[in-house]
Amino acid sequence: MTRDAQVLYGNSVVIDGLQTCAWSRPVFEEMRAAGLTMVNAASLLWENFSEGMAYIRTWEQLFADNADLIMPVRTVDDIETAKHTQRTGISIGWQNTSPLEDRLDYIRLFKLLGVNIMQLTYNTQNYSGAGYLELRDSGLTGFGREVIAEMNRHGVLCDLSHVGDLTAAEVIAHSSKPVCISHVLPRALHDVKRNKSDDLFKACAAKGGVIGLSLFAPGLKAGNDATIEDYLDAMAYVLNLVGEDHVAIGTDFSTGHPRPGPWQVWANRDKGYARQLTNFAQTVIRKPAGIATIAETPNLAPAMLRRGWSETRITKILGENWLRIFRATWTTET
Amino acid sequence: MTRDAQVLYGNSVVIDGLQTCAWSRPVFEEMRAAGLTMVNAASLLWENFSEGMAYIRTWEQLFADNADLIMPVRTVDDIETAKHTQRTGISIGWQNTSPLEDRLDYIRLFKLLGVNIMQLTYNTQNYSGAGYLELRDSGLTGFGREVIAEMNRHGVLCDLSHVGDLTAAEVIAHSSKPVCISHVLPRALHDVKRNKSDDLFKACAAKGGVIGLSLFAPGLKAGNDATIEDYLDAMAYVLNLVGEDHVAIGTDFSTGHPRPGPWQVWANRDKGYARQLTNFAQTVIRKPAGIATIAETPNLAPAMLRRGWSETRITKILGENWLRIFRATWTTET
Repeated sequence: MTRDAQVLYGNSVVIDGLQTCAWSRPVFEEMRAAGLTMVNAASLLWENFSEGMAYIRTWEQLFADNADLIMPVRTVDDIETAKHTQRTGISIGWQNTSPLEDRLDYIRLFKLLGVNIMQLTYNTQNYSGAGYLELRDSGLTGFGREVIAEMNRHGVLCDLSHVGDLTAAEVIAHSSKPVCISHVLPRALHDVKRNKSDDLFKACAAKGGVIGLSLFAPGLKAGNDATIEDYLDAMAYVLNLVGEDHVAIGTDFSTGHPRPGPWQVWANRDKGYARQLTNFAQTVIRKPAGIATIAETPNLAPAMLRRGWSETRITKILGENWLRIFRATWTTET
Repeated sequence: MTRDAQVLYGNSVVIDGLQTCAWSRPVFEEMRAAGLTMVNAASLLWENFSEGMAYIRTWEQLFADNADLIMPVRTVDDIETAKHTQRTGISIGWQNTSPLEDRLDYIRLFKLLGVNIMQLTYNTQNYSGAGYLELRDSGLTGFGREVIAEMNRHGVLCDLSHVGDLTAAEVIAHSSKPVCISHVLPRALHDVKRNKSDDLFKACAAKGGVIGLSLFAPGLKAGNDATIEDYLDAMAYVLNLVGEDHVAIGTDFSTGHPRPGPWQVWANRDKGYARQLTNFAQTVIRKPAGIATIAETPNLAPAMLRRGWSETRITKILGENWLRIFRATWTTET
C-alpha cells in the first residue's frame, strides 16, 4: 500500500454498514487490524422478542470482556470516541423486525438498548412487509407504516437490503427520514433478485439515503471469480447513478460462521427452520479476491486511489456518508 | 313455535359455527336454554403465544366450574356426548393464527389442547396472509402454505371469514382438506368488504367446505333494521348458489361484551392497540330482530319450516353440515 493510501485510510472514519459474523475476540482483533471505526453488527435474522433480548445481552458481555478492542455505539458521538480511542464501535443491528413481534412500543425499548439500525424484513413476509424471497410482495403493510413512523420518531435507521422491491419502494416513500440499503449490489450489472434496481437506488438517494455496496459474490457477475476490482466496478456504477454522497460500504462479512455450515442453513430457511428459501447454504460462496477478509478492508483505499477518485469521495464512501445518515436518523423526537 | 318445529329443533344437533362472547355461566345457561349442541368459542383475536395459552387455561377453569352446562369438544364423538348428556360442547377456536407466532410446531400442540378451528388471519397481515382490511392482499404466503399443511396434517379446520379475498382463494386452492367460512354474508346481496363473493363461496363448496351465515348487521342490506327473515334471505341466496350441503350457522354472537365498549375498541385496532381499522366500535350494531340473542336461536326452526325447507335441509343447516366437515378435517395424520 502506498503511503498516501495508508495516511488517507488511517485518518478516515471507516464504517462497515453490515457484518453478520460469529462474534468473538479474534473477530474484534481483525476489526482493529483493519482499522474499522464502526461496524453495524447485524447477525440477528429470525429471532423473536426474547431471542432479540438475548442478542443484546450477549453484546453487553462482549463489550465487558473486550473493552480494549470494542465499545458500544449508541450515539454518533460514540463513533468519534471509538476513533479517538482506537477501538471499533459496535452498533447493534437487526436484519429483521421479528424481535418486535406484535409490539410497536418495543422499537423505543430496543433503541434505548442500542439497536440503531433495523432491516424491516428478512427474506420473507412479516407483519410489516415482504422480504425479497416472498411469493408475492405485500408492499408496506398498515402495521409496517406504523413501524416506520416509530423508527422515525425514536431514532432507528431503517435498512431495506433483504426487503422486497415493492415494500422497499413504499418504505422510501413513506418514511419521513432517510433510509439505507446497507448491503446490496446493482441489478443493472447482474440481474438477480437479491440485487436492487436503479430506480430503487435513485429513490433512496433522492431521500438522502445511503447505499452500502456488498461483497456477496452471487450478486456480482463474476461470482466467485470476482476481485476487489469487480467490487469497485459495482460501486462505480452506483456512484455514477446517484452521486458520491449516497454510496458506502456494507461488506456482509460473516467471519466465524463456517461455510457451508449450520448458520447458513438456519439463515436460508424461513424463520430459521421452515422451508428452504435458497440453495446458498449448499453453495460455495467466496468474497472477492483482495477483499476476502475483514483484515483486507484497508485494500479499498489504494484501489480507490488508483481509480483516480478524490480523497473527498473516498472518505465519504469509507465512512462520512454513514456518519451523515446516522446524524439525520438516530435523533429521537420526544 | 309449532310442535313440529320444536320436535325438529330438539332432535337436531345444533352447532353455532362461531361465537365471540365474554364467557361466563350466564352465557352457558343461555346456550342450554337455546339447546345448542356445540359452539366454536372463538373470542381470541390478536393474542400471542402466551396469551393464546391463557385463553385455553381460562377454558379449562370454565369447564371445571360449569361441568353441568358445558363440556370440552376435542373429537367429533364429544359432540354426540354433549347432545346425549344435554350439555353444550365447546370447541376452542381462534380468529387469528397470531398465537403460533413464528412456530409451525405449535399447531399440533394447540390442537392437542383442544383448538380445532383456526382462522388464518384476523383483519390485517400476519405471517400467513392478509386480513380483509389490509392495505394490499399478499395472498397466502410461503409460511402460510406450511401453516395450512400443518393444519391439514394435525386436524385443525381452517376458517376464512376475516381473511382477505386473494388469501382466502389461495387457501382453498392450497388446502388438501375442506375449509370453512364460519361467519359471513354474501357480497352479492350487500357489497361490503367483510362479505364474500359468489366465486369464493363456490370454490369453498366445491372443496367440500361449509359456509356459516352470520348475524352481523353491517353485512345485511337492512342493517340494524334487519329481521330473522333478512337473515334467512341471505341464507337462501347462498343455498341457491352452492346447495344445502354447504350452508350452516355462524352467528358471531358477542354476548357479555357491552357495545360500544372496550372489547370492540380492542377488536377494531390492529394487534388490539395500533391503528383503528373500522368505526364498528363507535357504531350501534344490532342483531336481526327475532334472532337477537343466543336464546332466540331456536326461532330459526319455525322460520325455516315456514319457507317450506325440508327437514333434511334444516338439520343439515342446523348442524349436520358442520358435523360432516369436522369429521373430514379434525382427523390427525400421523
